[in-house]
Amino acid sequence: MSSNNGKADIALIGLAVMGQNIILNMNDHGFVVCAYNRTVQKVEHFLQNEAKGTNVVGAKSIEEMVSLLKKPRKVMTLVKAGRAVDALIEQLVPLLEAGDIIIDGGNSQYTDTQRRYNELKTKGIYYLGCGVSGGEDGARYGPSLMPGGAAEAWPSLKPIFQSIAAKVGTEPCCDWVGSDGAGHFVKMVHNGIEYGDMQLICEAYHLMKDSLGMSDDEMSSVLKEWNKGELDSFLIEISGDILAYKDSDGQPLLEKIRDAAGQKGTGKWTAISALDFGMPVTLIGEAVFARCLSSLKDERVRASSVLKGPSSAKYTGDKKEFIENIRKALYASKIVSYAQGFMLLREAAKQFNWTLNYGSIALMWRGGCIIRSVFLGNIKSAFDKNPNLESLLLDDFFHSAIDSCQESWRKVVANAVLLGIPTPSFSCALAFYDGYRSSRLPANLIQAQRDYFGAHTYELLSNPGQFIHTNWTGHGGSVSASTYQA
Amino acid sequence: MSSNNGKADIALIGLAVMGQNIILNMNDHGFVVCAYNRTVQKVEHFLQNEAKGTNVVGAKSIEEMVSLLKKPRKVMTLVKAGRAVDALIEQLVPLLEAGDIIIDGGNSQYTDTQRRYNELKTKGIYYLGCGVSGGEDGARYGPSLMPGGAAEAWPSLKPIFQSIAAKVGTEPCCDWVGSDGAGHFVKMVHNGIEYGDMQLICEAYHLMKDSLGMSDDEMSSVLKEWNKGELDSFLIEISGDILAYKDSDGQPLLEKIRDAAGQKGTGKWTAISALDFGMPVTLIGEAVFARCLSSLKDERVRASSVLKGPSSAKYTGDKKEFIENIRKALYASKIVSYAQGFMLLREAAKQFNWTLNYGSIALMWRGGCIIRSVFLGNIKSAFDKNPNLESLLLDDFFHSAIDSCQESWRKVVANAVLLGIPTPSFSCALAFYDGYRSSRLPANLIQAQRDYFGAHTYELLSNPGQFIHTNWTGHGGSVSASTYQA
Repeated sequence: MSSNNGKADIALIGLAVMGQNIILNMNDHGFVVCAYNRTVQKVEHFLQNEAKGTNVVGAKSIEEMVSLLKKPRKVMTLVKAGRAVDALIEQLVPLLEAGDIIIDGGNSQYTDTQRRYNELKTKGIYYLGCGVSGGEDGARYGPSLMPGGAAEAWPSLKPIFQSIAAKVGTEPCCDWVGSDGAGHFVKMVHNGIEYGDMQLICEAYHLMKDSLGMSDDEMSSVLKEWNKGELDSFLIEISGDILAYKDSDGQPLLEKIRDAAGQKGTGKWTAISALDFGMPVTLIGEAVFARCLSSLKDERVRASSVLKGPSSAKYTGDKKEFIENIRKALYASKIVSYAQGFMLLREAAKQFNWTLNYGSIALMWRGGCIIRSVFLGNIKSAFDKNPNLESLLLDDFFHSAIDSCQESWRKVVANAVLLGIPTPSFSCALAFYDGYRSSRLPANLIQAQRDYFGAHTYELLSNPGQFIHTNWTGHGGSVSASTYQA
Repeated sequence: MSSNNGKADIALIGLAVMGQNIILNMNDHGFVVCAYNRTVQKVEHFLQNEAKGTNVVGAKSIEEMVSLLKKPRKVMTLVKAGRAVDALIEQLVPLLEAGDIIIDGGNSQYTDTQRRYNELKTKGIYYLGCGVSGGEDGARYGPSLMPGGAAEAWPSLKPIFQSIAAKVGTEPCCDWVGSDGAGHFVKMVHNGIEYGDMQLICEAYHLMKDSLGMSDDEMSSVLKEWNKGELDSFLIEISGDILAYKDSDGQPLLEKIRDAAGQKGTGKWTAISALDFGMPVTLIGEAVFARCLSSLKDERVRASSVLKGPSSAKYTGDKKEFIENIRKALYASKIVSYAQGFMLLREAAKQFNWTLNYGSIALMWRGGCIIRSVFLGNIKSAFDKNPNLESLLLDDFFHSAIDSCQESWRKVVANAVLLGIPTPSFSCALAFYDGYRSSRLPANLIQAQRDYFGAHTYELLSNPGQFIHTNWTGHGGSVSASTYQA
């Protein structure tokens, strides 16, 4: 390998499925990639199999890997988020020099990326956190890439990243996101939205299956139909495939799969960030909780023998019409979910002084990634029309879309409730919509309660910003609370 | 004051409303309390006003305060959670000796209490985190106290704490909770549940006001009626008072209060813990998000002029019957919320090896605190019957209660959805109930999707615990993901 000394354009550390596929993708686009893995046998195995006949070079040690790189050295890590990333950085730093570049392509928490960015900045090393989405296929044939961190490094990375990224027409689904942890934050929100999209499809599947008694083949063709319209998206497409996929015995494999959803944490992080930033991203929250509830499988089975529901879960009205209502409920809920996601992005940008380009974020998600869809093209257009759009719900396209869906949406949620079929994300999206369009919510009662029992004070409608306390009981003091937190 | 040297039973630091009232409460029960505050003038002012004619002694410095205490010294802090507590501990430690006791009565994060407990343990100082609830009145006349931490200190504190605590009959609403941060964790969950209870009442108020067009006086008498039955509780009681409270012009003050709810974080922490522990505590989550949405008041006002809802929000059916349905929806939702809260307690106990007595926690909440209610007596009975009860929903009393409510509950949520009135906590509680009683949820589709795009593997119903990967597409690898996290 020494013959390749200093010839590699970029090094990639971590040869799990994503790492391998990104290397092969870079190779396809004419870049010489140096592959390295802590378990060195993996490198050999990769070179002799998946990478056979490519220009990929391997390294037996991290030192050799660095020696094989052109300057400024570019090292991309695709290892498990957390300690492993810090450990690699520790190993790398002594081998690198000012101006070299480290890119974390894993699903790191954006706060870790912010910390690492600041630490390496002092050493003159450019640190980037790059969101990578698209799963194994995306990595291999064109992922969505969300790079953020040291902007100085972007010019030298841009040719590599934009060439391997997915394209929409000729536009790459990869552009500069923002400083420090912005790339990983946007990826986190992407994953949260992905949790929401998956849950929405599950609720449509649940309704069609239980209230309409449809077969997996029937549902598959419905999703394939939906995939030709407003809902055209990767997740609808693969759900149609999954419903049609038969096990060796000719039965749908899906129905044999255990209904206990796993998660790796990024959806959870999005919900936690939403709580921390005080943004009501309810749909992602419910989607994460729905996975938690699903994972209590044994407890649910026990509960199912005790807890009763409505006498029948069967919908007795027009089937074709109800299916269309479900489609519209899914679409309207999806609009709310994305509106909530962009509210969170906006709030984070405010907090961290990021200047996020919401249109280009929509474009990055438009192709390559798990949530890729025609829908994201509509979002891009909305932000192209008005870069300072306060909420997607206020864009003409989306609010008229909701107008045309909302009657169906309400019918579906009302029926699900009466039939006893849980649709947590459909219904929380609707509750958000009805709350968001309310100039008046009942929170005045919360403020009165808090002032009653905790002297927390409240504002008058006539005098916002001025907080006053009422002695509601007659007794009790007029001292207002500065410590007690109810 | 030196004449009191060594005479004080306990010192209390922090003379905001809660601190003042707890001191006066302790004084009423014959304990000599030493009052101290960083701003020393507050001490003088307190002694010359609220504490005039009591046995309360004051201290001009923290050193003097310590000198006035009997041994083992007992110092309770009621200051703002966070740095202020650490700063006080730093000041106190050099002045104390092994066996002395520090009690944090503020709303500290249980993780901070765990950290402080462990730090002080090495110094031989007994550290406790004690949840205090009841607002200013509770603190004055009998709060709910949830002490946890160094069990060695409990015997000497028990007489003071149990005498000042609220009583249910003769039983004090104060008992030992558990080690390290258990007391503050239980208080945190209490506050989360409080957020839920408040939101549930708001939704009932919203429905009565908007769908039935009821006046505040009408609603007040309805709540006073409700307060005689299953819903008998402090929050229903004060809400009835609040609805009846007239401003100087004779109009209900409530309607003049700005509908933007504040929060101090403990509800948020509960929701975040739920996400961290993977427990679907959806109602508290929605209650926190509902406050977030309410606080976007100006944005909602702008949105209200753009976004349409149903033609009318008026309920046209029988008014009396609908009010009773709302009561039942509130009651059923409340049962779900408490079931979720106890799920979270159980999971935390598992994680931290706490042996929580769920019945005595219910008793601690039964009186004194903000969520005090007859309902908590039913919860105590449920855990008395079966200390290892898996879920409140599986207790005979509660599941028959839900049986008798669920038809009304479903009608209310369905109507709210059709009328365009947001009831996020009523509906998420119902979705949870329907999910919890489902032996089969659609999460099998989530698992199939994750395996399709991310090679995350899944389990078969026939073979739980064994994770397998299917190559759904035909192309793509058979390498399963160890790094990529969708």
